[in-house]
Amino acid sequence: MTELLVPHPRFITLEGGEGAGKSTALAAVREALQSSGYEVVRTREPGGTPLAEKIRGLLLENRPSAGGSEALVPETELLLMFAARAQHVREVIRPALQRGAYVVCDRFTDSSYAYQGAGRGLDQSWIEDLERRAVGLRPGLTLLLDLDVRQGRARTRGRDLWPDRIESEQDDFFERVRECFRLRAAADPGRFRLIDATRPAAVVASEVGAVVSEWLRHAG
Amino acid sequence: MTELLVPHPRFITLEGGEGAGKSTALAAVREALQSSGYEVVRTREPGGTPLAEKIRGLLLENRPSAGGSEALVPETELLLMFAARAQHVREVIRPALQRGAYVVCDRFTDSSYAYQGAGRGLDQSWIEDLERRAVGLRPGLTLLLDLDVRQGRARTRGRDLWPDRIESEQDDFFERVRECFRLRAAADPGRFRLIDATRPAAVVASEVGAVVSEWLRHAG
Repeated sequence: MTELLVPHPRFITLEGGEGAGKSTALAAVREALQSSGYEVVRTREPGGTPLAEKIRGLLLENRPSAGGSEALVPETELLLMFAARAQHVREVIRPALQRGAYVVCDRFTDSSYAYQGAGRGLDQSWIEDLERRAVGLRPGLTLLLDLDVRQGRARTRGRDLWPDRIESEQDDFFERVRECFRLRAAADPGRFRLIDATRPAAVVASEVGAVVSEWLRHAG
Repeated sequence: MTELLVPHPRFITLEGGEGAGKSTALAAVREALQSSGYEVVRTREPGGTPLAEKIRGLLLENRPSAGGSEALVPETELLLMFAARAQHVREVIRPALQRGAYVVCDRFTDSSYAYQGAGRGLDQSWIEDLERRAVGLRPGLTLLLDLDVRQGRARTRGRDLWPDRIESEQDDFFERVRECFRLRAAADPGRFRLIDATRPAAVVASEVGAVVSEWLRHAG
Protein backbone atom coordinates (compact mmCIF):
# COMPACT_ATOMS: atom_id res chain seq x y z
CA MET A 1 0.00 0.00 0.00
CA THR A 2 3.02 2.29 0.17
CA GLU A 3 2.68 4.79 -2.62
CA LEU A 4 5.46 6.42 -4.55
CA LEU A 5 5.99 10.14 -4.62
CA VAL A 6 4.97 11.22 -8.07
CA PRO A 7 5.68 14.86 -8.99
CA HIS A 8 2.93 16.28 -11.17
CA PRO A 9 3.75 19.12 -13.60
CA ARG A 10 0.29 20.71 -13.24
CA PHE A 11 0.48 20.81 -9.46
CA ILE A 12 1.96 24.11 -8.22
CA THR A 13 2.43 25.07 -4.58
CA LEU A 14 3.37 28.25 -2.74
CA GLU A 15 5.38 28.12 0.44
CA GLY A 16 6.97 30.62 2.75
CA GLY A 17 6.82 32.23 6.14
CA GLU A 18 4.31 34.79 7.29
CA GLY A 19 4.16 38.20 5.66
CA ALA A 20 5.85 36.97 2.48
CA GLY A 21 2.92 38.01 0.30
CA LYS A 22 1.51 34.61 -0.60
CA SER A 23 -1.97 35.92 -1.39
CA THR A 24 -0.74 38.36 -4.02
CA ALA A 25 1.58 35.73 -5.42
CA LEU A 26 -1.25 33.16 -5.61
CA ALA A 27 -3.31 35.61 -7.65
CA ALA A 28 -0.34 36.09 -10.01
CA VAL A 29 0.02 32.32 -10.47
CA ARG A 30 -3.66 31.95 -11.27
CA GLU A 31 -3.60 34.84 -13.70
CA ALA A 32 -0.59 33.43 -15.57
CA LEU A 33 -2.29 30.04 -15.90
CA GLN A 34 -5.70 31.38 -16.87
CA SER A 35 -4.25 33.72 -19.47
CA SER A 36 -2.81 30.60 -21.09
CA GLY A 37 -6.32 29.11 -21.18
CA TYR A 38 -5.98 26.52 -18.44
CA GLU A 39 -8.61 25.57 -15.87
CA VAL A 40 -7.16 26.47 -12.46
CA VAL A 41 -8.23 25.00 -9.12
CA ARG A 42 -7.00 27.19 -6.28
CA THR A 43 -6.92 25.56 -2.87
CA ARG A 44 -5.12 25.71 0.46
CA GLU A 45 -3.75 23.70 3.36
CA PRO A 46 -4.60 22.72 5.91
CA GLY A 47 -8.07 22.47 4.38
CA GLY A 48 -9.43 22.27 0.86
CA THR A 49 -12.41 19.95 1.50
CA PRO A 50 -15.29 20.39 3.97
CA LEU A 51 -13.81 17.72 6.25
CA ALA A 52 -10.25 19.03 5.92
CA GLU A 53 -11.50 22.55 6.74
CA LYS A 54 -13.01 21.13 9.95
CA ILE A 55 -9.60 19.66 10.79
CA ARG A 56 -8.13 23.10 10.10
CA GLY A 57 -10.60 24.46 12.63
CA LEU A 58 -9.34 21.99 15.25
CA LEU A 59 -5.75 23.03 14.51
CA LEU A 60 -6.61 26.72 14.99
CA GLU A 61 -8.87 26.30 18.04
CA ASN A 62 -6.33 24.28 19.92
CA ARG A 63 -3.31 26.47 19.54
CA PRO A 64 -1.28 26.75 22.70
CA SER A 65 -1.90 30.48 23.02
CA ALA A 66 -5.71 30.27 22.95
CA GLY A 67 -7.16 30.66 26.41
CA GLY A 68 -9.04 27.71 27.83
CA SER A 69 -8.57 25.25 25.00
CA GLU A 70 -6.56 22.06 25.00
CA ALA A 71 -3.12 22.59 23.49
CA LEU A 72 -2.20 20.26 20.67
CA VAL A 73 0.78 18.00 21.25
CA PRO A 74 3.22 18.12 18.29
CA GLU A 75 2.45 14.53 17.23
CA THR A 76 -1.28 15.29 17.10
CA GLU A 77 -0.64 18.45 15.09
CA LEU A 78 1.42 16.50 12.54
CA LEU A 79 -1.15 13.70 12.22
CA LEU A 80 -4.05 16.14 11.82
CA MET A 81 -2.11 17.96 9.07
CA PHE A 82 -1.60 14.69 7.20
CA ALA A 83 -5.17 13.48 7.85
CA ALA A 84 -6.43 16.65 6.18
CA ARG A 85 -3.88 16.30 3.38
CA ALA A 86 -4.75 12.66 2.63
CA GLN A 87 -8.38 13.67 2.15
CA HIS A 88 -7.51 16.81 0.16
CA VAL A 89 -5.28 14.92 -2.27
CA ARG A 90 -7.86 12.22 -2.98
CA GLU A 91 -11.01 14.38 -3.03
CA VAL A 92 -9.76 17.53 -4.75
CA ILE A 93 -6.20 17.58 -6.05
CA ARG A 94 -5.93 14.27 -7.90
CA PRO A 95 -9.39 14.50 -9.52
CA ALA A 96 -8.56 18.02 -10.77
CA LEU A 97 -5.19 16.92 -12.16
CA GLN A 98 -6.81 13.91 -13.80
CA ARG A 99 -9.28 16.05 -15.72
CA GLY A 100 -6.43 18.25 -16.98
CA ALA A 101 -6.71 21.25 -14.64
CA TYR A 102 -3.85 23.02 -12.94
CA VAL A 103 -3.96 22.97 -9.14
CA VAL A 104 -2.46 25.87 -7.20
CA CYS A 105 -2.16 25.20 -3.49
CA ASP A 106 -1.32 27.63 -0.68
CA ARG A 107 1.06 25.46 1.40
CA PHE A 108 1.51 21.70 1.08
CA THR A 109 3.79 18.99 2.47
CA ASP A 110 6.88 21.23 2.49
CA SER A 111 5.15 23.18 5.28
CA SER A 112 4.97 20.02 7.40
CA TYR A 113 8.71 19.50 7.01
CA ALA A 114 9.28 23.13 8.00
CA TYR A 115 6.75 23.72 10.80
CA GLN A 116 6.20 20.29 12.38
CA GLY A 117 9.62 18.92 11.49
CA ALA A 118 12.21 21.70 11.85
CA GLY A 119 9.92 23.89 13.97
CA ARG A 120 8.51 21.38 16.44
CA GLY A 121 11.41 18.95 16.27
CA LEU A 122 9.54 15.89 14.95
CA ASP A 123 11.56 13.33 12.99
CA GLN A 124 12.03 14.15 9.32
CA SER A 125 11.98 10.39 8.56
CA TRP A 126 8.46 10.20 10.01
CA ILE A 127 7.30 13.05 7.76
CA GLU A 128 8.90 11.36 4.75
CA ASP A 129 7.03 8.18 5.60
CA LEU A 130 3.71 10.03 5.93
CA GLU A 131 4.34 11.83 2.66
CA ARG A 132 4.86 8.51 0.85
CA ARG A 133 2.01 6.65 2.50
CA ALA A 134 -0.70 9.29 2.95
CA VAL A 135 0.02 11.71 0.10
CA GLY A 136 1.92 9.98 -2.70
CA LEU A 137 2.08 13.17 -4.74
CA ARG A 138 4.47 16.08 -5.07
CA PRO A 139 4.10 19.39 -6.83
CA GLY A 140 6.02 19.81 -10.05
CA LEU A 141 6.71 23.45 -9.18
CA THR A 142 7.05 25.07 -5.76
CA LEU A 143 7.47 28.81 -5.35
CA LEU A 144 9.23 29.63 -2.10
CA LEU A 145 8.63 33.20 -1.01
CA ASP A 146 11.66 33.86 1.14
CA LEU A 147 11.80 36.65 3.68
CA ASP A 148 13.77 37.57 6.76
CA VAL A 149 11.86 36.41 9.87
CA ARG A 150 11.73 39.83 11.54
CA GLN A 151 10.62 41.54 8.35
CA GLY A 152 7.82 38.98 7.96
CA ARG A 153 6.63 39.45 11.52
CA ALA A 154 6.63 43.22 11.13
CA ARG A 155 4.42 42.87 8.05
CA THR A 156 1.89 40.55 9.67
CA ARG A 157 1.51 42.36 12.96
CA GLY A 158 -2.22 42.58 13.66
CA ARG A 159 -3.19 40.13 10.95
CA ASP A 160 -5.00 36.93 11.91
CA LEU A 161 -3.42 34.42 9.57
CA TRP A 162 -3.42 30.62 9.51
CA PRO A 163 -0.51 30.01 11.77
CA ASP A 164 -1.64 32.38 14.50
CA ARG A 165 -1.04 29.38 16.72
CA ILE A 166 2.46 29.57 15.40
CA GLU A 167 2.86 33.34 15.27
CA SER A 168 2.92 33.46 19.04
CA GLU A 169 6.04 31.31 19.13
CA GLN A 170 9.59 32.48 19.36
CA ASP A 171 11.71 33.88 16.57
CA ASP A 172 14.05 30.90 16.70
CA PHE A 173 11.12 28.67 15.76
CA PHE A 174 10.63 30.78 12.63
CA GLU A 175 14.34 30.80 11.91
CA ARG A 176 14.30 26.98 11.90
CA VAL A 177 11.25 27.01 9.64
CA ARG A 178 12.89 29.41 7.18
CA GLU A 179 16.16 27.47 7.17
CA CYS A 180 14.29 24.23 6.45
CA PHE A 181 12.45 25.79 3.51
CA ARG A 182 15.72 27.17 2.11
CA LEU A 183 17.53 23.84 2.50
CA ARG A 184 14.71 21.99 0.77
CA ALA A 185 14.78 24.50 -2.08
CA ALA A 186 18.56 24.18 -2.45
CA ALA A 187 18.31 20.36 -2.47
CA ASP A 188 15.67 20.25 -5.22
CA PRO A 189 16.28 23.07 -7.71
CA GLY A 190 14.25 21.29 -10.38
CA ARG A 191 11.09 21.77 -8.33
CA PHE A 192 11.73 24.91 -6.28
CA ARG A 193 12.02 28.54 -7.32
CA LEU A 194 13.34 30.78 -4.57
CA ILE A 195 11.59 34.15 -4.75
CA ASP A 196 13.06 37.12 -2.89
CA ALA A 197 10.01 38.38 -1.00
CA THR A 198 11.67 41.41 0.57
CA ARG A 199 10.76 43.41 -2.54
CA PRO A 200 7.40 45.21 -3.06
CA ALA A 201 4.42 42.90 -3.66
CA ALA A 202 3.98 44.06 -7.26
CA VAL A 203 7.59 43.20 -8.10
CA VAL A 204 7.26 39.79 -6.45
CA ALA A 205 3.98 39.13 -8.29
CA SER A 206 5.61 40.05 -11.59
CA GLU A 207 8.47 37.61 -10.99
CA VAL A 208 6.03 34.90 -9.92
CA GLY A 209 4.04 35.39 -13.14
CA ALA A 210 7.23 35.16 -15.19
CA VAL A 211 8.30 31.95 -13.42
CA VAL A 212 4.94 30.35 -14.11
CA SER A 213 4.97 31.40 -17.76
CA GLU A 214 8.44 29.91 -18.11
CA TRP A 215 7.21 26.73 -16.43
CA LEU A 216 4.33 26.51 -18.91
CA ARG A 217 6.73 26.78 -21.86
CA HIS A 218 8.56 23.69 -20.58
CA ALA A 219 5.76 21.67 -18.96
CA GLY A 220 2.76 22.63 -21.06
CA MET B 1 12.17 11.09 18.54
CA THR B 2 11.01 7.52 17.87
CA GLU B 3 9.64 6.18 21.10
CA LEU B 4 9.73 2.62 22.29
CA LEU B 5 6.59 0.64 23.01
CA VAL B 6 6.47 0.34 26.75
CA PRO B 7 3.80 -1.98 28.17
CA HIS B 8 2.40 -0.63 31.42
CA PRO B 9 0.95 -3.01 34.01
CA ARG B 10 -1.68 -0.53 35.20
CA PHE B 11 -2.99 0.14 31.69
CA ILE B 12 -5.86 -2.24 30.80
CA THR B 13 -7.78 -2.22 27.53
CA LEU B 14 -10.92 -3.91 26.25
CA GLU B 15 -11.22 -4.91 22.65
CA GLY B 16 -13.71 -6.81 20.56
CA GLY B 17 -16.34 -6.58 17.87
CA GLU B 18 -19.80 -5.12 18.23
CA GLY B 19 -22.31 -6.72 20.56
CA ALA B 20 -19.62 -8.45 22.61
CA GLY B 21 -20.76 -6.75 25.82
CA LYS B 22 -17.87 -4.33 26.34
CA SER B 23 -19.88 -1.94 28.54
CA THR B 24 -20.77 -4.62 31.08
CA ALA B 25 -17.22 -5.93 31.00
CA LEU B 26 -15.78 -2.43 31.54
CA ALA B 27 -17.93 -2.04 34.64
CA ALA B 28 -16.62 -5.39 35.90
CA VAL B 29 -13.01 -4.31 35.35
CA ARG B 30 -13.57 -1.07 37.22
CA GLU B 31 -15.30 -2.85 40.09
CA ALA B 32 -12.48 -5.38 40.47
CA LEU B 33 -9.90 -2.58 40.59
CA GLN B 34 -11.84 -0.30 42.91
CA SER B 35 -12.60 -3.12 45.34
CA SER B 36 -8.84 -3.49 45.64
CA GLY B 37 -8.59 0.18 46.53
CA TYR B 38 -7.08 1.55 43.35
CA GLU B 39 -7.94 4.84 41.65
CA VAL B 40 -9.42 3.97 38.25
CA VAL B 41 -9.58 6.25 35.23
CA ARG B 42 -12.09 4.92 32.72
CA THR B 43 -11.75 6.27 29.21
CA ARG B 44 -12.44 5.37 25.59
CA GLU B 45 -11.19 5.62 22.05
CA PRO B 46 -11.45 7.34 19.76
CA GLY B 47 -11.79 10.15 22.26
CA GLY B 48 -10.90 10.66 25.90
CA THR B 49 -9.96 14.37 25.78
CA PRO B 50 -12.10 17.33 24.59
CA LEU B 51 -10.02 17.58 21.41
CA ALA B 52 -9.95 13.84 20.82
CA GLU B 53 -13.73 13.71 21.28
CA LYS B 54 -14.04 16.34 18.53
CA ILE B 55 -11.94 14.11 16.30
CA ARG B 56 -14.29 11.25 17.21
CA GLY B 57 -17.13 13.49 16.02
CA LEU B 58 -15.43 13.95 12.63
CA LEU B 59 -14.95 10.18 12.37
CA LEU B 60 -18.66 9.57 13.02
CA GLU B 61 -20.03 12.44 10.92
CA ASN B 62 -18.07 11.42 7.89
CA ARG B 63 -18.95 7.76 7.73
CA PRO B 64 -19.62 6.60 4.19
CA SER B 65 -23.25 5.74 5.01
CA ALA B 66 -24.22 9.20 6.30
CA GLY B 67 -26.20 11.13 3.70
CA GLY B 68 -24.64 14.29 2.37
CA SER B 69 -21.34 14.18 4.21
CA GLU B 70 -17.87 13.67 2.81
CA ALA B 71 -16.76 10.06 3.17
CA LEU B 72 -13.43 9.56 4.89
CA VAL B 73 -10.69 7.93 2.86
CA PRO B 74 -9.02 5.06 4.78
CA GLU B 75 -5.73 6.94 5.20
CA THR B 76 -7.54 9.92 6.75
CA GLU B 77 -9.46 7.63 9.08
CA LEU B 78 -6.23 6.01 10.28
CA LEU B 79 -4.45 9.34 10.81
CA LEU B 80 -7.40 10.84 12.70
CA MET B 81 -7.47 7.77 14.97
CA PHE B 82 -3.79 8.20 15.77
CA ALA B 83 -4.06 12.00 16.10
CA ALA B 84 -6.72 11.47 18.77
CA ARG B 85 -4.66 8.71 20.39
CA ALA B 86 -1.45 10.78 20.55
CA GLN B 87 -3.35 13.48 22.44
CA HIS B 88 -5.20 11.01 24.66
CA VAL B 89 -2.00 9.23 25.71
CA ARG B 90 -0.18 12.44 26.61
CA GLU B 91 -3.07 14.36 28.20
CA VAL B 92 -4.90 11.60 30.07
CA ILE B 93 -3.39 8.12 30.08
CA ARG B 94 0.27 8.79 30.93
CA PRO B 95 -0.49 11.40 33.62
CA ALA B 96 -2.93 8.98 35.30
CA LEU B 97 -0.43 6.12 35.19
CA GLN B 98 2.28 8.40 36.55
CA ARG B 99 0.23 9.30 39.60
CA GLY B 100 -0.38 5.60 40.30
CA ALA B 101 -3.91 5.15 38.94
CA TYR B 102 -5.15 2.28 36.81
CA VAL B 103 -6.41 3.27 33.36
CA VAL B 104 -9.17 1.22 31.75
CA CYS B 105 -9.72 2.07 28.10
CA ASP B 106 -12.54 0.97 25.80
CA ARG B 107 -10.56 0.20 22.60
CA PHE B 108 -6.97 1.24 21.90
CA THR B 109 -4.30 0.62 19.26
CA ASP B 110 -5.32 -3.01 18.69
CA SER B 111 -8.54 -1.63 17.17
CA SER B 112 -6.50 0.28 14.58
CA TYR B 113 -4.73 -2.91 13.56
CA ALA B 114 -8.10 -4.66 13.30
CA TYR B 115 -10.35 -2.01 11.72
CA GLN B 116 -8.02 0.20 9.68
CA GLY B 117 -5.42 -2.50 9.04
CA ALA B 118 -7.19 -5.82 8.46
CA GLY B 119 -10.58 -4.20 7.78
CA ARG B 120 -9.61 -1.37 5.41
CA GLY B 121 -6.48 -3.01 4.05
CA LEU B 122 -3.92 -0.42 5.20
CA ASP B 123 -0.35 -1.64 5.76
CA GLN B 124 0.30 -3.21 9.14
CA SER B 125 3.87 -1.81 9.01
CA TRP B 126 2.43 1.72 8.82
CA ILE B 127 0.30 1.10 11.91
CA GLU B 128 3.32 -0.33 13.75
CA ASP B 129 5.26 2.80 12.88
CA LEU B 130 2.45 5.08 14.09
CA GLU B 131 2.15 3.04 17.29
CA ARG B 132 5.86 3.52 18.01
CA ARG B 133 6.06 7.18 17.07
CA ALA B 134 2.70 8.62 18.14
CA VAL B 135 1.73 6.35 21.04
CA GLY B 136 4.82 4.73 22.59
CA LEU B 137 2.72 2.85 25.12
CA ARG B 138 1.01 -0.53 25.26
CA PRO B 139 -1.46 -1.92 27.76
CA GLY B 140 -0.14 -4.52 30.15
CA LEU B 141 -3.43 -6.41 29.94
CA THR B 142 -5.91 -6.57 27.05
CA LEU B 143 -9.23 -8.36 27.39
CA LEU B 144 -10.48 -9.49 24.00
CA LEU B 145 -14.21 -10.18 24.02
CA ASP B 146 -14.55 -12.65 21.19
CA LEU B 147 -17.85 -13.31 19.46
CA ASP B 148 -19.06 -14.73 16.16
CA VAL B 149 -19.69 -11.86 13.72
CA ARG B 150 -23.33 -12.75 12.99
CA GLN B 151 -24.12 -13.15 16.65
CA GLY B 152 -22.60 -9.74 17.39
CA ARG B 153 -24.61 -8.07 14.64
CA ALA B 154 -27.81 -9.68 15.83
CA ARG B 155 -27.18 -8.28 19.31
CA THR B 156 -26.44 -4.73 18.15
CA ARG B 157 -29.29 -4.37 15.66
CA GLY B 158 -30.91 -1.03 16.31
CA ARG B 159 -28.12 0.23 18.58
CA ASP B 160 -26.17 3.34 17.62
CA LEU B 161 -22.66 2.43 18.69
CA TRP B 162 -19.29 3.95 17.89
CA PRO B 163 -18.56 2.12 14.71
CA ASP B 164 -21.94 2.78 13.13
CA ARG B 165 -19.84 3.97 10.21
CA ILE B 166 -18.42 0.49 10.27
CA GLU B 167 -21.60 -1.42 11.13
CA SER B 168 -22.98 -0.66 7.72
CA GLU B 169 -20.12 -2.53 6.08
CA GLN B 170 -20.09 -6.08 4.92
CA ASP B 171 -19.74 -9.18 7.06
CA ASP B 172 -16.40 -10.05 5.47
CA PHE B 173 -15.01 -6.77 6.81
CA PHE B 174 -15.99 -7.88 10.32
CA GLU B 175 -14.61 -11.35 9.75
CA ARG B 176 -11.23 -9.79 8.91
CA VAL B 177 -11.45 -7.60 12.01
CA ARG B 178 -12.24 -10.59 14.25
CA GLU B 179 -9.50 -12.72 12.71
CA CYS B 180 -6.96 -9.91 13.28
CA PHE B 181 -7.94 -9.56 16.94
CA ARG B 182 -7.67 -13.34 17.43
CA LEU B 183 -4.28 -13.52 15.72
CA ARG B 184 -2.94 -10.66 17.83
CA ALA B 185 -4.19 -12.37 20.98
CA ALA B 186 -2.60 -15.67 19.97
CA ALA B 187 0.71 -13.93 19.21
CA ASP B 188 0.89 -12.16 22.58
CA PRO B 189 -0.56 -14.41 25.31
CA GLY B 190 1.28 -12.48 28.02
CA ARG B 191 -0.84 -9.42 27.32
CA PHE B 192 -4.11 -10.79 25.93
CA ARG B 193 -6.88 -12.73 27.61
CA LEU B 194 -9.39 -14.17 25.14
CA ILE B 195 -12.87 -14.04 26.67
CA ASP B 196 -15.67 -16.11 25.14
CA ALA B 197 -18.38 -13.47 24.71
CA THR B 198 -21.06 -15.80 23.42
CA ARG B 199 -22.09 -16.49 27.02
CA PRO B 200 -24.58 -14.37 29.02
CA ALA B 201 -23.26 -10.93 30.05
CA ALA B 202 -23.24 -11.83 33.77
CA VAL B 203 -21.06 -14.87 33.11
CA VAL B 204 -18.69 -12.84 30.94
CA ALA B 205 -18.51 -10.08 33.58
CA SER B 206 -17.70 -12.63 36.25
CA GLU B 207 -14.83 -14.06 34.21
CA VAL B 208 -13.58 -10.57 33.44
CA GLY B 209 -13.55 -9.72 37.14
CA ALA B 210 -11.65 -12.92 37.91
CA VAL B 211 -9.08 -12.19 35.21
CA VAL B 212 -8.48 -8.70 36.58
CA SER B 213 -8.18 -9.99 40.16
CA GLU B 214 -5.64 -12.55 38.98
CA TRP B 215 -3.77 -9.78 37.13
CA LEU B 216 -3.65 -7.70 40.33
CA ARG B 217 -2.14 -10.58 42.26
CA HIS B 218 0.73 -10.68 39.78
CA ALA B 219 1.09 -7.01 38.79
CA GLY B 220 -0.03 -5.25 41.96
